[in-house]
Parts: sequence; structure tokens; C-alpha cells
Amino acid sequence: MKSGLHFLLAAKRCEIAELRQLALTAALVDASARLIHELQRERGLSNLYLGSSGQRFGAERLAQIDQSSAADAALRAHFDHLDTEASQLRHGARLFGRIAYVLHGLSALPGLRRQVERGAWTPAQATAAYSRLIAGLLAVIFEAADTASDPDISRLLVGLFNFMQSKEMAGQERATGSALFASGLADEAGQQRLLYLIESQERALEVFAQFAPPEAVVLWQRNDAQSTQAALERMRRILCSSGADGALNPEMSQRWFDTCTERMAAMRAVEAFLSAALRALCEQRREWLEQELQSLSGVRVQDHPAEQTLSFFDEAPHTADAPNHPLGSQLERSVLELVQAQAQRLQAMSAELDTTRASLNERKLVERAKGLLMAQRHLSEAQAHKTLRQLAMNQNRRLVDVAEAVLALADLATGSVHPQTGAAAHK
Amino acid sequence: MKSGLHFLLAAKRCEIAELRQLALTAALVDASARLIHELQRERGLSNLYLGSSGQRFGAERLAQIDQSSAADAALRAHFDHLDTEASQLRHGARLFGRIAYVLHGLSALPGLRRQVERGAWTPAQATAAYSRLIAGLLAVIFEAADTASDPDISRLLVGLFNFMQSKEMAGQERATGSALFASGLADEAGQQRLLYLIESQERALEVFAQFAPPEAVVLWQRNDAQSTQAALERMRRILCSSGADGALNPEMSQRWFDTCTERMAAMRAVEAFLSAALRALCEQRREWLEQELQSLSGVRVQDHPAEQTLSFFDEAPHTADAPNHPLGSQLERSVLELVQAQAQRLQAMSAELDTTRASLNERKLVERAKGLLMAQRHLSEAQAHKTLRQLAMNQNRRLVDVAEAVLALADLATGSVHPQTGAAAHK
Repeated sequence: MKSGLHFLLAAKRCEIAELRQLALTAALVDASARLIHELQRERGLSNLYLGSSGQRFGAERLAQIDQSSAADAALRAHFDHLDTEASQLRHGARLFGRIAYVLHGLSALPGLRRQVERGAWTPAQATAAYSRLIAGLLAVIFEAADTASDPDISRLLVGLFNFMQSKEMAGQERATGSALFASGLADEAGQQRLLYLIESQERALEVFAQFAPPEAVVLWQRNDAQSTQAALERMRRILCSSGADGALNPEMSQRWFDTCTERMAAMRAVEAFLSAALRALCEQRREWLEQELQSLSGVRVQDHPAEQTLSFFDEAPHTADAPNHPLGSQLERSVLELVQAQAQRLQAMSAELDTTRASLNERKLVERAKGLLMAQRHLSEAQAHKTLRQLAMNQNRRLVDVAEAVLALADLATGSVHPQTGAAAHK
Repeated sequence: MKSGLHFLLAAKRCEIAELRQLALTAALVDASARLIHELQRERGLSNLYLGSSGQRFGAERLAQIDQSSAADAALRAHFDHLDTEASQLRHGARLFGRIAYVLHGLSALPGLRRQVERGAWTPAQATAAYSRLIAGLLAVIFEAADTASDPDISRLLVGLFNFMQSKEMAGQERATGSALFASGLADEAGQQRLLYLIESQERALEVFAQFAPPEAVVLWQRNDAQSTQAALERMRRILCSSGADGALNPEMSQRWFDTCTERMAAMRAVEAFLSAALRALCEQRREWLEQELQSLSGVRVQDHPAEQTLSFFDEAPHTADAPNHPLGSQLERSVLELVQAQAQRLQAMSAELDTTRASLNERKLVERAKGLLMAQRHLSEAQAHKTLRQLAMNQNRRLVDVAEAVLALADLATGSVHPQTGAAAHK
């Protein structure tokens, strides 16, 4: 008959297998982040090219496409090495589904580039297309952030994911501003979009600062040079407050692009730091667990565990010389203590994990409510976000609470909510 | 190079593997539920025996121990058949950890029985000991409820788990009332505990009604006979409102036990129904997916997918005769549609799952806040629950919000909260 110790050891082995898996996922995150970085730059240069009606930035754009293609090939090689036969893979269905989606996006990339080359698409269309592909890549990383069951690793992943989100918003800001400067005209839709992107960046950076290790936060504060910040803020002001005619100086497009790119490079460095920290943390945890497993494997259990031991029912922590415990049950009790320590650890991990996951969940709720408003009221992303924020301010509630209310209202309208309890009904 | 379709197939295989796993877990849930049922009855009879100072119910108790032992052996056999070498098992660490804990509890059971036999423990002590062991068994089921990624299955598991919780509260009510009737005396602590148990039952049953399939809810309404309900309510009133001296008629203990037991049997039938429904649902889903996988395996992908297809970037759903799509890309586009359908399905599943998990999470938060109040203020479970409920009523807030506030306050006190954001800080 399998003993409690046997299952304790099996539990540890599962934890170790999960950490191995996570280390592989961390490498995948890294390869995805590299490709995202190149595509972000390609998007910005494409907008400069389109904004200047193909007059400028053509050579830079072509050189960047080579860079992107190299990162693309590296990520595909990574995908090819994934063990898709291991159907026991944790969250494999979601991860593989995301990858399938990304692969289709990547195969559509040459077509997108041709549209840009020909000037067949507006900068807004090109930005939307690149952003959709990048969103698909970020979704791969989101899946990873949602799978870790070690709270420290999960926190690091949430920090990393939010940092990458803010970097993507910064990249979209660069692309949008590039198109406006290059075209010499700031229209209202573009200005609204910029304001939305700036605010979203800051929100994601706040979450990053909450969840990432302090060293990463300090690194970001140091990397985000004040000179770049000042230059960026000056140009943001010009973009967002240009007069009624919205005229801009096209000569500024290069400076805008360079300043934003400097900031993106600083962000890329922090991202790489977080990614390395993630791999180191997985490795360290795995080593701890391997050691623990080894020392546990040395424990011998009596063939007939002292069944009469009542320490299982003790309220207080066990003391060695408690009465009522027959001699010889010492060993049995120490295994019990290990089992209880493991149970408490899992309990504490689960509590911490809930807090971390809550942040991911809030993000998802806000995104979903925004999507709903966009579809129902034909709003842009920026307008939908503004609507939610306005509602939150008016009602003095958190953004996530308003998002929840918006979604609940929609459920009510479609009749998928139980009229009495207000909870989603069984479908 | 692996194609999008390749990863789509891999995703489906993962889903199928997960469902196979879940079907095994469902069988484990079933075996656990059977043992819980027997232990609940043993707990009630033990209290009748202890309450009557060993004068009555001795033979019934011994007969019940045989029943419990049979269910115990069946569950252990089940544990023995679990593949503990498969360290890739989803949530294996948590499941195996819980099982290790339960095995230690089961090996302490003979000792517990001896304490009852000798009359060495009070009914309250014996109830607490049995309840701890049953809580360990319920935790195994909770792990299962937390693992499913199909929202229908998850909803069913949440319904089942809450039903089992309410059955356990009903079982504790039977045991507590049994001890009071048998001893001929209702003390205030016992009365308070009963009121708490009655209220908790009802709360868990409400969640059950929200999440379980309608047929199960109807079955419970039909099984919960009005005659039993009326008799139970009459005796509850006698127990909870007995005068200052708290005197009870010991002759009523048999009727109390029988009435409660009748209700527990009705609950057991609903539990078995849910358990069968769970296995059927897993089976059905698995068959669907196998069929889908088979039809997908027949799809042939071109060696060079039409890279120029831009349908990936389309906002609207794809129509067969959309312009801009070169001839021959039909097949490529249909695979893209499959990939997008899968992405949307995962998205919808994730949204539904969040709703379901939220209910589990709320439960965990309330339990944790209760535990905190019990530890910090030396309250009984009933008192802690009353405190939370009172706070919620006074502030006109939901129980879960108050629980969250209580936990946040504790975090603040221990300094683990970021002073500005109010969120838990990185530890």
C-alpha cells in the first residue's frame, strides 16, 4: 500500500516537473520578446515610410525587415523544438492554440509588408495589422504567466507581462506619433489614441512596479533617462496640443522616432533582465526541490505506521514530548509533520497566487468590457477606455468594478443571467 | 517546419488528455464521497454513543465502523492505482499533497475510535477530529474542482463541491444535535454552532443551485422531502430555543438522528447523480474532441501556405468570396478559420471559467478571513462567521468584500502591504 510519504514524494516530483516546464516556457518567452521588439521597430519605420508617402525611411525599413526576419526564424525554430507530442503538457491546449494563431499571423507578414511597400494601406491600418500580430505573441506570454503555481514565479511573470504590455503601448505610441509627424498633420483621432496609449503605459508600469522584483524596478528607473523623458514629454505636448489645423513639422519625425526608440531600447534591457531573472528563479526553485526530494528519499517509513498516533488531530503544533504518543511513533510523527508542512505550504502558495492572479484577472475584465463597448457602441479603443474611466470617476469606483458592471449588464441584456441571484446562469 | 495546423492538432490532443485525466479524477471524487458519507454517519453515531455516556448506540456504532472500513479500503485501493510516477500530471503536486495528508488522517482513525470507545473525548472533540479528516477528503475534491479548464465541467464540479460542503455541514449538524439530545442538555456553544451550521448549509446550497445542472437541482428539490423538512425544523427549534436550563428529552435523540440521516441519504443520492453526470460529461466532451481531431487530421496543408493572404488581419469574419484573396488560398484560409475558431473558443472558455472560479475564490477568501479572526481573536468558527456577517450587514457590503477587507487589514498590520498602492507588496 502506498504511504503518505510516497505521495509526498510524488507531489515533489510533480513540482519539479512543473519547474522544468516553466524553464522551457521562459526560453519561449524570451524568443517571443525578441521578435516583438523587432516587429515594434518595423511598425514604427513603416509608419514613417507611409506617413512620408514613401519619400523617406525606405532603406531603414528594408534593413529592419531583415532584422525582423532573423528573429522570426529564431522563434519558429523554437516552436519546432517544442514537444507537441507531450499531450500531458500543462495548459498545452491554450499554449499550442496561441502558437497556431501566431504562426498564421507570421505567414501573413510578407503580405502586410507588400501592402506597406505599395502604400496601399493607411498608417492606421498598418499599425492595426502589426499590433494584431504582436498581440498574438503577447498572448503566448500571457498563457505562460497564468500557468505558474509558485507565487514568486507567478509574480515575476505578472511583472514581466505588464512590462511587456507597457512596452507595446510605448511602441504603438512611437508608431502613431511617427505617422503623424511624418505626414505633417495631427488629427483628433490620432491625438486621442496617443493620450490613451500614454495612460495605458503608465497603468501597466504601475502593476509592473508592484509585482516585479525591486532590482528590476530600480533598473527601469535608472534606464528611463531623464533627458529622454524630457524630450519625449516635449514632443508629446506638441503632438497632442497642436492647433486647429493640426500642422506639424515633418522634420521632427526623425527626432521623435529616435527618442522613442531610445526609450524602447531601455525597456528592452529591463525586459531581458526580467527574462533572465525568471530563468534563474526557476532554476533555483528546482534545485531547492531536488535537494528536498533527495533528503526525503532517505526517510524510511515503518511497515506498520503507528496507527494509534493521534497527533493528526492536534490543534497545536506538535511538540516532541507530548503525552499520549506511544514510544516509537516519533518517525511516523515526523513524516506527518512533513506532510502538514507541505499542506501549509500549498495553502500559503494558493493564497499568494490568488492575489497575483487577481491582477491578471482584472486586466482581462477591463479588456473584455472595453471590447464590448467597442463592438456595441462602435467606439475606438481609446474612446471605450475613456468611457470606462469616466464611469469609474463619476461613480467613485475602481476601473475593474465598472468593467464588471458593464459586463454584467450585457449578460442581463442577453438573458444569460439568473434574474434572482444576478449570477451567470447555467447554460 | 511545424505548421499552424500541427499546433492546432497538438492543442486538441492536450484537451483530450486533460479530459481523460478528469475522468480518472471523477472516479477518485466518487470514492472519496463514499468514504465521507460513511464517516459522517460514524461521527453522528459516535456522538450519540458519547452523549449517552456509552449507554446506547454501541452496537450501531460498531456496525457502522465496519461500513466505514470497507469504504476506507476502497479509497485506499483507488489511491494505490493512481499513477504517481506520472510527474507531468496536472496539479499533481497539490493532489498528491492532499492525498498524503488524508492517508495520515486515515491511519489515525483507529486511535480516534479507541478514544470514543473509552469515552476519553467529549462529543465536541470527537466531532472536531472526524470533521478534520473529512475536511482533508473534501480538499482532495476541491483540488479537482480547481483543475478543469472546460467551463461546463468546472461548473459541474463547483456545484458538486458546494453540495458536498452543504452535506458536510448537515452531517456536522446531525452530530452536534445528536450529542445534545443524547446528553439531555443544549448548551449555548452547541446552539450557536447549530445555527452556524444551518446557515452555512443554506449558503452552500444556493451556490450549488447556481452552478449545478438544472436536473440535479430539481432532483434535490424532489428528494428533500417536505415531511423530513418539517420534522427537522421542529427539532431544530427545540434544540436552538430550549430554555435557560437547556434541558432536552434524550428519547428524542433517535428521532433526530433518523430524520437527519434520511436527509443525508437524500443528499447522497444527489451527490451520486452529480458524480455520474460529471463522468458522463467528461466522456461526452472527450468523444466530441476525438471526432474533431479525426476530421482535422484529414485536412491537408499546402507545403507553401499562401503567404500573401491578408485574411489574418481582417476585422470582420471571413466570407468565402472576399476580394484580395488570390485563388488557391481557400484551404489556407479555412485552416486559419479553424485556428481563429479555436482561439475564440479558448477565449470564451476562459471568460466563463473566470466566473466559475470567482465563486471558488470567494469561498476561499471568506474561509481565510474566518480563520484569521479565529486565530487573532480566539473566536469559534461560528463566532467568526457571525462577526463577518455582522460587518457585511452594517456596511451593506457583500460577505466576500468584508472578508477581503479583513485580510487586507491584517496584511497592513504585518507590513506586507505597499503603503501607496494598497496592494500586496513583493516579498
